Order: sequence, then C-alpha cells, then structure tokens
Amino acid sequence: MKPLALDAMGGDFAPQETVAGALLAASEGVPVVLVGDEARLREELERQDGSLPIVHAPEFISMEEHATEVRKKRQASIVVATRLVKEGQASAVVSMGHTGATMASALFVLGRVRGIERPALLAELPAHTPSGKVHVIDAGANADVKPRQLLQFATMGSAYAEHVYALKRPRVGLLSIGEEATKGNRLVLEAHALLKKSDLNFIGNVEGRDIMTGKADVVVCDGFVGNVVLKLAEGEAKAIFRWLKEALEQSTRAKLGALLLKDALKRLVARLDPAEYGAMPLLGVKGPVFIGHGASDKKAVKNALLRAAAMARSDFMEALAASA
Amino acid sequence: MKPLALDAMGGDFAPQETVAGALLAASEGVPVVLVGDEARLREELERQDGSLPIVHAPEFISMEEHATEVRKKRQASIVVATRLVKEGQASAVVSMGHTGATMASALFVLGRVRGIERPALLAELPAHTPSGKVHVIDAGANADVKPRQLLQFATMGSAYAEHVYALKRPRVGLLSIGEEATKGNRLVLEAHALLKKSDLNFIGNVEGRDIMTGKADVVVCDGFVGNVVLKLAEGEAKAIFRWLKEALEQSTRAKLGALLLKDALKRLVARLDPAEYGAMPLLGVKGPVFIGHGASDKKAVKNALLRAAAMARSDFMEALAASA
Repeated sequence: MKPLALDAMGGDFAPQETVAGALLAASEGVPVVLVGDEARLREELERQDGSLPIVHAPEFISMEEHATEVRKKRQASIVVATRLVKEGQASAVVSMGHTGATMASALFVLGRVRGIERPALLAELPAHTPSGKVHVIDAGANADVKPRQLLQFATMGSAYAEHVYALKRPRVGLLSIGEEATKGNRLVLEAHALLKKSDLNFIGNVEGRDIMTGKADVVVCDGFVGNVVLKLAEGEAKAIFRWLKEALEQSTRAKLGALLLKDALKRLVARLDPAEYGAMPLLGVKGPVFIGHGASDKKAVKNALLRAAAMARSDFMEALAASA
Repeated sequence: MKPLALDAMGGDFAPQETVAGALLAASEGVPVVLVGDEARLREELERQDGSLPIVHAPEFISMEEHATEVRKKRQASIVVATRLVKEGQASAVVSMGHTGATMASALFVLGRVRGIERPALLAELPAHTPSGKVHVIDAGANADVKPRQLLQFATMGSAYAEHVYALKRPRVGLLSIGEEATKGNRLVLEAHALLKKSDLNFIGNVEGRDIMTGKADVVVCDGFVGNVVLKLAEGEAKAIFRWLKEALEQSTRAKLGALLLKDALKRLVARLDPAEYGAMPLLGVKGPVFIGHGASDKKAVKNALLRAAAMARSDFMEALAASA
C-alpha cells in the first residue's frame, strides 16, 4: 500500500502529536509520509527517536487564514499532501488542521466525483448496531442543501458502510421529526420521495432518538443538523459523565463502588471518546481525505491514520464512481 | 388559583394514569379539573378511591384523526378543556393526547399572542447550568421558519426563563455550527443579526456541544433541529445507560461495585428521565398550554400539572404581551 500523506503541521498540537501519532500508526503497519517543514519535522522525529519519510512543504495555512488561501499557497503542507494523492504517490491525505482549507484543497486538487455536487463529511457515532457504530452524513460540510444532494449523501454513506465496513445493504435512514413520510421540513419531505425511489436500502425516516439506539446504519441529514447532532452527542456524553462522577463522590459507599468499577467505567468513557474515532472522511472528492479534530492527540492522530488506511485499502472509490 | 384543566382522555394510558397523576398533583396542592367522558372518569375516580371535579366532554380526538378535527368536534375533551381557560374557569390546559390537536385547539380557541406569528414548544433538558436545566425553543412545533420567527422564539424563551424560573437576564444562545457570527445556515445567519439588535441578553451562537454543558439558559433553533436535539438527548441517555449496564455486568468485581452504586445511579437516571420533565409548554398562545408525552405515566402527568401550575402562577403571559 502507498503511504498515507499526513499534514504534519496541522492541528493544535502539531508537529509533536502528529509525528507521535504517525509513528504509532507506522508501528501498526500503516506507512505514513510526513508533509511539512522538513527541518522542524526532522528535529521532532529525532526528539521522539523515530524515523519516517518527509516531503517538504515550506508554507502553511493557519487557522486564522481563509480557506481560499489554498489557491495561492501552492506549497502549503495541506496542498502538497493532497497533491501526493492526486499524483498517485500517496493513498490518502489526513489533516488535523484547518477544516475549510482541507476541504478546499481536496476540491481544488482532487476534484469532485462525477454525480456528486457537494462533498460531505461522514461522522461515526457509537451506537447499538451490530458494528457498534452509526454513520452520520453530512456532519458539517454543507449548511444549506437541496433534496437531491441529500440523496447523494445517502449514496455515499451507504457505499462507505458497505465497502469500507463490509456491511451488506446498509440500512439508510433519513433524519426527521417523525417516522411517517409526511413528517419533516420541506427539504426532508422532498428528499424522502427521492430516497424511496432509489436503489438504496432506505428504511424511511428515523428520529433523533434512533441515532444511537441502532435503528439505521447510515443516517442522512444536512450538514447543519449533522453538525449539531455530532456535537450534541459529544457534549451530552461529557455532561453525563460529569453527573456520573458527582454521583460517585456523594457517599463513602458510592466511592467504594466507584473504585470497584474503575476499569469498566474507563472502557465506557473510551467508547464515547471522540479521539477513538480519529477523523471524518470527506466523501465525494476523488481520493480519500480525512479531517480530524484540531485538538487531536497522538492517539487520535493514529486512529485517523488507521481509518484512512482502511478506506484506502477498500474499493470504495471505484464503487462510488460506479454508483453515483 | 383556578384549577388546571386536564384532558383526562388524552394519552396512551388514559384515563387511568391521567386520573392518578391528577390525584397526585391535587395532593400536592394543585387544583385540577378532569375533562372528558363523565361516566368513565367517575368510574376511574371510584376505582382509585379519589375525588376531583369533572367537566363532561362527550367527544374525543383520537391519535388517528387529523388535528383539524378540533374545528368540527367542539365537544372533544381537548377543545372543552381549552375553552375552560378561554372562559376564565381554568388557569391552564394540560394534555398527554394528540399533540397536533392540542396545538390546533390552542390556536383556534385561545388565539395567538400579538406579535407572535408561530407558537413554539419549549423543552427543558438537564444541563450544567445553575438551575440544572436548559430551555430549548422551538422543540418541534415549526419545521420551517423565518429568521424573525427565531427572534420571536428567543423572546418567548427568555420571558419564560425569567418569569417562570426567576432567572435574571437569561443568557440566550442561537444554535449554530460555529461560535462566529459568520457560521451557520442562511436562516441562522439572518436570525443572528436580528438577535444582536434585540434587547435580549444574546450571547451569540452556541454549538451542539454547549447545549447540556450549560453555556446558555435558552437555546433557540427551528422546530426541526429542536425536535432532533430533544430526541437525540433522550436516545443518547438511553444508549449510555445501556452500555453502563453492560459494563456493570462484565465481572464479579463490577457487579459488586454496581450494587454499592445502585442509589447514586438511580438518581442519575432520574435526572435524565423525560418523565421528570412532564410536559412542554406551547408558548405564543393566549394562555398556558402544556403538551405531554403520549406514553406518560402518573408521575409524568403529575409533573406536567406542577409545571403548568408554575406557569399559571407566574406573570409570564403579561410579560410576554408587554414585550412581544
């Protein structure tokens, strides 16, 4: 497998955590090439006593800059990393940096898949499905969309679940405010009709309460709703664990119980930790592109790289090109 | 205080649980009048060995019927109950029945507050705020709205938090997908500008992760997003408790810890139980109207009645009429 191109300069804790995460991924058999300022990266590798190939990129797009900078800064790390995919030297690009710049770079350098008007982010949330997860698309790339674009998101989400996670005929649900086809806003009512006519395994509308309880494998929504869902899910888990912690400190009895439960609770917290999920793929561009959380630590970077490797090894791109 | 009018025929477990809930509320000093089929209600009261005033309503709107039936069935329990408020014989109407019919009845019999184009549902979610809760408006009444209607929702939510819960200058947040004023969909971008010019204590955009972590006292969104938020919050709590239960059964050690934590965990589950919240007020109509979950048990019915009493005792209606 060709190496993954990691924008080693992107993210709140770059290059320390990006380099550390890349070394972890490499130790698990995933080849990575670091893209960024060569001198800084070489220094960081030495500090961490590791070795990885580097592709030099003298420029960088900071969080304060506009995403359109990718058109001017052709030597920015994210642009160079994306170009490695375009040129067939890397199998995927992974960035914890500027989300907008990563998306712009993907569109500008790789271009859109035919039949897909708007690339979309796919988020994975923990859920009571057989796979233990649910795929939510769009998780934030497009705030205002058209009904036919929701159908395109559904097609991409279904292909991803099928070809990257080997789910047969993934159950696709349309996020709405009632199970009946007549429930929803104008966007969703029209999208429902399009999905019903499609070849997807469309199970109809699903509600907010169904997302994590496992009714569908793929949940389709616009990027505004999807982003709210993703962040609420994260915030609620945090809020509940805070209450749980308070509850466990209320009495000596509870404290003792908490001590006995430490390991079990740790595993539960890990299951709901966004770092476990690493990064989200941007689907609909011609090549695997993964966008991680800015605050990613080495574990999140490693998980993002493993996830990108899984997509790069799959036949998702071919399947999407054939179906979209 | 004038009695609350309870649509005793509405809800999956009516009249058994509605009557039982009304008796519980009455025992806590909240006067209730039961509205519905007099013979059936008298029988149920006898069975439960209780006594409450009854206003006879020979008709009923079932879940299968359309909300517009309220215009034809003038003697339906929900219509009669709402009329008691209109005529000054009851201080609020509470229903666990047909949501659409309750809203239609409120609009038809009571009418809208001047300045409010669309009444909206206000949901309370548990949150790390000083009051332990956050008010989300609109929680599902309006799937497609205009920017100025989001401002009206904000005005109502703020007045509710201030006049029913005695919060001084409630912090109002606009639900969006980024903190910056430039982040959001078209609806939210326009609403942001209107909110900024208003007299409300507008703290700007809040994200999904902020809802339960306590950044705002009132979170404003359209009814599609609000309904997804409300139901995801419910579904995620359920999913997490299911994982927690699994974790607590994984080893003898964990089982023993769980035993010690039983009471602490019970209190946590109760905090996140929708039944604790009882019902949602429909704000923007001329009188307190509370809509509960169809599956309400007596505890949920009682809590809905207590909540309605708190609103009826407050000066919310006068304050809203003055500000909207």
